[in-house]
Amino acid sequence: MSKYLRKTIETLKPYEAGEQPSRGSTVIKLNTNENPYPPSPNVRRALRTFSPIALKRYPEPLADTFREAAAKVFGVRPEMIIAGNGSDDIINIAIRAFVDVGERIAYPVPTYSLYSVLADIQQAQTFEVPFDDSFDVPKGLAEAQAKLTFVANPNAPTGTFIRPEKIEQLARKTKGIVAVDEAYADFADANCLELAKRLPNVLVLRTLSKSYSLAGLRFGFAIGQPRLIEDMNKVKDSYNCDALAITLAARAIEDQAYLAKTVARIRRQRQVLTRGLISLGFSVLPSQANFLWATIHSPPAKQIYLELKRRGILVRYFDHPGLTSGLRISVGSSKDNRSLIKALASIV
Amino acid sequence: MSKYLRKTIETLKPYEAGEQPSRGSTVIKLNTNENPYPPSPNVRRALRTFSPIALKRYPEPLADTFREAAAKVFGVRPEMIIAGNGSDDIINIAIRAFVDVGERIAYPVPTYSLYSVLADIQQAQTFEVPFDDSFDVPKGLAEAQAKLTFVANPNAPTGTFIRPEKIEQLARKTKGIVAVDEAYADFADANCLELAKRLPNVLVLRTLSKSYSLAGLRFGFAIGQPRLIEDMNKVKDSYNCDALAITLAARAIEDQAYLAKTVARIRRQRQVLTRGLISLGFSVLPSQANFLWATIHSPPAKQIYLELKRRGILVRYFDHPGLTSGLRISVGSSKDNRSLIKALASIV
Repeated sequence: MSKYLRKTIETLKPYEAGEQPSRGSTVIKLNTNENPYPPSPNVRRALRTFSPIALKRYPEPLADTFREAAAKVFGVRPEMIIAGNGSDDIINIAIRAFVDVGERIAYPVPTYSLYSVLADIQQAQTFEVPFDDSFDVPKGLAEAQAKLTFVANPNAPTGTFIRPEKIEQLARKTKGIVAVDEAYADFADANCLELAKRLPNVLVLRTLSKSYSLAGLRFGFAIGQPRLIEDMNKVKDSYNCDALAITLAARAIEDQAYLAKTVARIRRQRQVLTRGLISLGFSVLPSQANFLWATIHSPPAKQIYLELKRRGILVRYFDHPGLTSGLRISVGSSKDNRSLIKALASIV
Repeated sequence: MSKYLRKTIETLKPYEAGEQPSRGSTVIKLNTNENPYPPSPNVRRALRTFSPIALKRYPEPLADTFREAAAKVFGVRPEMIIAGNGSDDIINIAIRAFVDVGERIAYPVPTYSLYSVLADIQQAQTFEVPFDDSFDVPKGLAEAQAKLTFVANPNAPTGTFIRPEKIEQLARKTKGIVAVDEAYADFADANCLELAKRLPNVLVLRTLSKSYSLAGLRFGFAIGQPRLIEDMNKVKDSYNCDALAITLAARAIEDQAYLAKTVARIRRQRQVLTRGLISLGFSVLPSQANFLWATIHSPPAKQIYLELKRRGILVRYFDHPGLTSGLRISVGSSKDNRSLIKALASIV
């Protein structure tokens, strides 16, 4: 830390991403909810035919190639889509477009910890409402009347899901924006896309990092009313998505058949892994995502995490109050999942 | 604009990027300081061999592959480098790391208009000090005692250059950070890299958009003391550069021989174009960048801009007080430059 650092940031606890093993490492990586399967073959083809000469020009400011492709897939107009450098960029843009210093950002907890980090950087007021055991919209969230309310749905790290009707009630009760972070929605039975089409204050956030196997590409987007998208365009970087990412993302989203196939495989594996964990004595929350939240009385979750790490298997342990009793485990390939269950069997 | 838009943003004049002609258009594009030559052949090779499967994983959080390559080139430690999604990302990160709401950001004017836009979004106080005819560090800039002082060097849109000794004096006199935006430094006779190595409060900002012909890749970086870089890492997005961009940027920066060749060609063309414009009656500021600032008494610059556009040649006209008498013209290929001079001869 230098003496030049902004006062507000001095005490900021930065977002902690999951461990990234060094290049060439062979660990089984079930700690950051990546997809075990490769991206669509369309991505490979687009990569092989992309002309490097095109890179000398600035990219499309609004990622139109992607917006047009995604608009067809989701049945909306391109003006209802904003693309970003990962959905973290989109979350940042939403906060900077809709929340002034000192204004309120609300969200249920536990959830994706980036919301509070970005709110702190923006000097917004955070209003956290704990989930109850139903993991439904918690009482008090609508009443917070925040300028911006985040609902990760499916939620992380719990994997739990709130039905769209409940989100609609929330959106109708609050005067601010409700941003439904659907990073994991492709793995769920339903989603809130129709709300973003119908309601003036609902944004749906999506990413290509999970279901499209493109975490390395950094590509996220939001869908909402054209006016909301216009607001967000005002504060985004002029060229926030690069030309390669725009092209590859467009080709990936066009391949909905491949998405469906990959998602079906992961949902099957989610079931297999859930059963395996339960048979070992874990409690597992019903998950609509590509990961599971598993708790056990003993040994302590931290010890299990460390033992797994020693065996070359990474899962996510959160050293935060309220989360220390569980592990967030990404659904991997059937082989990786078997290795995990085998390792766990020897630990618990 | 929606009713949800943050009050601060309502009146914000967003940054205006140069026109981007639609896909497949054949205009001669001399309006956004892109490089007329292709990127290094290393970039093509890296693109052709990049495994799309690698994209399923999150990228390196700190872009280590790039940092290590750049550290060798610039003779610094990797900890002295931060990579960003274009240098716009880096500028944003610097403001959010070093400037609290209401604190001061200073810069000479006219200059890159993004500084004021991002300062406004951050609700920082902007302190603008006009250049005098020497285009040297203007009186009053050090005395502003800003938390963050930007100096684009070479400056845009003037192309003028401040000698590093003068920047050093500025840095020694100010208590805040001096960020030397060296987007165009590869085209200049000197730069401030040594200051970033020696002084605790100097950051040097670079981009691969201009001299490396990679505007479409969105890749910028800053060099400074490890403590400053650490501060900036606290507020950046966890994965702000994508895996493809990191790899291609690393390969591009390693090819310093190609850079030298391209830069030499552009510097030669800069001379040819300068002479051509002067022979047509334009005044041209001595440029150390890959563009020229050209003024003429009549016809009005706006009319020339429109006439050129009608002929399929884009140059940059700024409809801002103090800039309406000139045109910013990117140095193109010798063919494009000849076409420009020919068109201008028939207009002026």
